Amino acid sequence: MANKYLSGKHLGLVIFAGAILLILITFGISSFFFNNKELQRETVGEIGAREADPAVWGQYYPLTYQTYLENFENTEKPSHFETKPYMQKIYAGLGFAVEFNEPRGHVYTLEDIRAIAPQRYKTGAACNTCKSSQIPEIIDKYGDQYYLMDFKEINDQLEHPIACLDCHDPKTMELTITRPALIEAYARQGKDIKKATRQEMRSLVCAQCHVTYYFEKDTKKVTFPWDKGVKADEILAYYDEDGFVEWTHPDSGTPLIKARHAEYETFMGSTHQTAGLACADCHMPYQKMGNTKVTSHNWTSPLNNIEESCMVCHREGSDWLKSRVEDTQQKTKETQDRAGNTVVKAIDEIKIARATPGVNAELLQQADETLRKGFWYLDYVMVTNGYGFHNPTDTMNNLGKAIDYAHQAIQFAKDAR
Amino acid sequence: MANKYLSGKHLGLVIFAGAILLILITFGISSFFFNNKELQRETVGEIGAREADPAVWGQYYPLTYQTYLENFENTEKPSHFETKPYMQKIYAGLGFAVEFNEPRGHVYTLEDIRAIAPQRYKTGAACNTCKSSQIPEIIDKYGDQYYLMDFKEINDQLEHPIACLDCHDPKTMELTITRPALIEAYARQGKDIKKATRQEMRSLVCAQCHVTYYFEKDTKKVTFPWDKGVKADEILAYYDEDGFVEWTHPDSGTPLIKARHAEYETFMGSTHQTAGLACADCHMPYQKMGNTKVTSHNWTSPLNNIEESCMVCHREGSDWLKSRVEDTQQKTKETQDRAGNTVVKAIDEIKIARATPGVNAELLQQADETLRKGFWYLDYVMVTNGYGFHNPTDTMNNLGKAIDYAHQAIQFAKDAR
Repeated sequence: MANKYLSGKHLGLVIFAGAILLILITFGISSFFFNNKELQRETVGEIGAREADPAVWGQYYPLTYQTYLENFENTEKPSHFETKPYMQKIYAGLGFAVEFNEPRGHVYTLEDIRAIAPQRYKTGAACNTCKSSQIPEIIDKYGDQYYLMDFKEINDQLEHPIACLDCHDPKTMELTITRPALIEAYARQGKDIKKATRQEMRSLVCAQCHVTYYFEKDTKKVTFPWDKGVKADEILAYYDEDGFVEWTHPDSGTPLIKARHAEYETFMGSTHQTAGLACADCHMPYQKMGNTKVTSHNWTSPLNNIEESCMVCHREGSDWLKSRVEDTQQKTKETQDRAGNTVVKAIDEIKIARATPGVNAELLQQADETLRKGFWYLDYVMVTNGYGFHNPTDTMNNLGKAIDYAHQAIQFAKDAR
Repeated sequence: MANKYLSGKHLGLVIFAGAILLILITFGISSFFFNNKELQRETVGEIGAREADPAVWGQYYPLTYQTYLENFENTEKPSHFETKPYMQKIYAGLGFAVEFNEPRGHVYTLEDIRAIAPQRYKTGAACNTCKSSQIPEIIDKYGDQYYLMDFKEINDQLEHPIACLDCHDPKTMELTITRPALIEAYARQGKDIKKATRQEMRSLVCAQCHVTYYFEKDTKKVTFPWDKGVKADEILAYYDEDGFVEWTHPDSGTPLIKARHAEYETFMGSTHQTAGLACADCHMPYQKMGNTKVTSHNWTSPLNNIEESCMVCHREGSDWLKSRVEDTQQKTKETQDRAGNTVVKAIDEIKIARATPGVNAELLQQADETLRKGFWYLDYVMVTNGYGFHNPTDTMNNLGKAIDYAHQAIQFAKDAR
């Protein structure tokens, strides 16, 4: 009998059973060392559907909450003006010219918007949209009227900054979109955001806020200008179609449009994005806490935790990796400065032309139109975090256009007078 | 006794011996399958020290020679003018404006230089320097007088194109530098090229020709403008130091300098170069021929053998890799076109200014100086193979400068009249 069991197909069965056993043991050992219990915990009915307080969520997910609290350590917010003095001239007439700082921890959203100069409030309640996890409930309460309300009336109701509820369904912990502007922008492109894959969602939750937008003319609704696509050319074409004007520059008198932190748009089509990565892959890397693997909710530059972020894929050494990022950023900054200084010159030249009696109106209009383009391509880059690293060639290409159009504006303005 | 041998440190010895045996067996098997005999063959005394005929070398290295012969298949040489019409205007006064083609197989160097319009010959014998493996012997024969001789007098003596002897020592097969300009450029920078590592040599043999250069004023010696460094800024500073002029543009009357295929210079400081790669890693990948591993001597774009070149490191799939390269090249081309068209406008505007009676000489000179800069940054990119892929951000940064300076030239020219 013994011989019979060990020969022919029975021997095969024994080997197969042994292999299965080995796999189970290996799996058991891995589970012991990398026990992702935190993310599998059942929370149905325990966290309220509108629970905006991250501390409540933290009782169920203490390790993830611990990483969230690390955002309090990201305290620096140096002024953009220190390294980009041309910004104040370029943004004249906007709150951005009064105070415009580098971003810091997401937990400071409310503190920072309250500390900022009052002229930034004038756009109204809509400015609160990306500052608190209570906003979806408020939008439900007031409907589209919310966007038109007084800034302070809404702001006074806010207690919690950006937190868990902004991106997670409290019942299932699944990623979810809570801001209408993104859902609507998808719909206008004929896409249903509910059909997004999990990997797409790992960028789209960030794209609720880390995008460029405008306030719709009469409704003041936060709107994404994506109907023709998300790249700089496509957004410009969208704005040009109905001659949208965000503000008129007080010096040059030029009707302009304004970009906002287009991180998502810039990232689209990049090497990392087309390689299948999402925002979270670099900005929310896994980290080991005890014997648990936790997704970091400390949103910061991947350079601050390069071992957990970049080096999961790139194993060439952190110093070298950092030097490569810095090389791209330094060259982007250099080209951006060139574009910024040229846009300043264009503003000055158009100002002189506009004040010149008998100025050639047609050439002056061409100057305005080319400055509008040059400013747009510069601004799309300048207000986007990462100094071009999210998509280096796309960024540099946009800056090339900015330099070209700004110079054309200078020439039209000079020819006009 | 048996027990004694199998216990304690003796057991360890047995395991150690077993491991060594296993390593030796593995090594033996690998050697059998990947027998690199071709590159280890002894050739001392069998290939002459001046043997320029690749067919003779091919008798000793038949497989490598077979890859060299594949260069004959790279026959296409489309005119640059088809995709860059602004080139003819920009290069007016130079042979480059008459005929300027994309590069093809190294085996066609002699055929192509003989077929080209006679005006390209005027610089003299020096133009043969990178066309034949017989040149080092000819330089030995005539000394520096060679560079001043008649083009045809030298060219008539040439029978073999670029081949084995250009980069290899026939006795040891080691890589070797055969062109004086590179050795001298290294020496002027205080470096001894004999101390270059093997990996550096795998780029430096290419850098004998794939670099920018000029003909020294009186001696007509091929000279590399590297004394201050190899990047565009550094080379421009070198030329500016003594106001070097290669030719005066016949339309604008502007004294200009000229770049040549700066592949090596562009590659320096790039992601791939700082990651430790050499030209040969991408352009001369290993390929399997039977049971022998051979370094391909078919010099072409890595996109033509993406599996052997890129995919040794990048395993994401050839279609995706190709799309990434094309994305960089397409954006570079777009920005380059923008710079090219702006330089053309600058030439036209300076031409008008120079013909204007009572033109402001000082402003006209500033127009010339800025065009010289703008043209240089464009040309450094435009004549370099790879459409920016050798160093995308460096390339785009240079193009941003080109656009900026060319527009400044336009403004100075307009202001001057």
